[in-house]
Amino acid sequence: MAGVDAPRTGAQRKADALAALGERDAGVWVASASPEGAAHLVPLSFAWNGTHVILAGEISARTTRNIVDAKVARLGFGGTRDVVMIDAVLAEAIPAVDVPPAVGDGYAGQCDWDPRSVEGDFAYLLLRPKRVQVWREANEIAGRTVMRDGAWTV
Amino acid sequence: MAGVDAPRTGAQRKADALAALGERDAGVWVASASPEGAAHLVPLSFAWNGTHVILAGEISARTTRNIVDAKVARLGFGGTRDVVMIDAVLAEAIPAVDVPPAVGDGYAGQCDWDPRSVEGDFAYLLLRPKRVQVWREANEIAGRTVMRDGAWTV
Repeated sequence: MAGVDAPRTGAQRKADALAALGERDAGVWVASASPEGAAHLVPLSFAWNGTHVILAGEISARTTRNIVDAKVARLGFGGTRDVVMIDAVLAEAIPAVDVPPAVGDGYAGQCDWDPRSVEGDFAYLLLRPKRVQVWREANEIAGRTVMRDGAWTV
Repeated sequence: MAGVDAPRTGAQRKADALAALGERDAGVWVASASPEGAAHLVPLSFAWNGTHVILAGEISARTTRNIVDAKVARLGFGGTRDVVMIDAVLAEAIPAVDVPPAVGDGYAGQCDWDPRSVEGDFAYLLLRPKRVQVWREANEIAGRTVMRDGAWTV
């Protein structure tokens, strides 16, 4: 985005965040850390059910283990100059074999794959956004927080 | 990228990684963690001097503090479906007032800003790639590691 664009309103940023969350077959950068303080970062598919970001990963994967341990993740949607950054709290981790159809079907419907149909022991991670920040360039740093403590501020 | 594309050779992936590192005015997703295991993620500008990724950040910023403490960072270049992932080791952290001209000018030449010219106490972080992984879709997971222990494997 050109740096000269006028900063978006809070309402527009919220709408853009929800549009990013609803995008079909898209990816998100997922940052997590081990209890010992080793940072990890991977791109993953995601779904959004209106209240939770849903990720799926192998139960043995570093990202899955880190999030199950720490109960939090930091999620970067969009590009580095058109950012939706979400600090999220783990609400539930569900092995694929136990996942409710609404969650499994919702994930498969928004993503390009279905963890229930492939080899491996997968788990779904339901992450509740706690803070949402939306910005493009420096002139949007102010006002970038559109959700705080789990509540939209705009 | 379409999932049906043939996987790239290792040499091509290395070339694509170097092209990503040399991109002008681009951003990188920087994952770091505190000693207590709190993951952080921010998009930052970067430069590449042929051996080190150069980041700049306020000395008081979480990412700067995390990397100075942990001496490592994980860097995601490109998009979530066209990834260059670099695990890097901190070689040097240099306050902006002390930075050698070659580093400061190199950063300013590749990025769209110069930390020496703005308010605030900035530091340059020189990060040496230790592992580089390059992949797009599932068919490129095999062979994605093109640098291991600081040495190109291809």
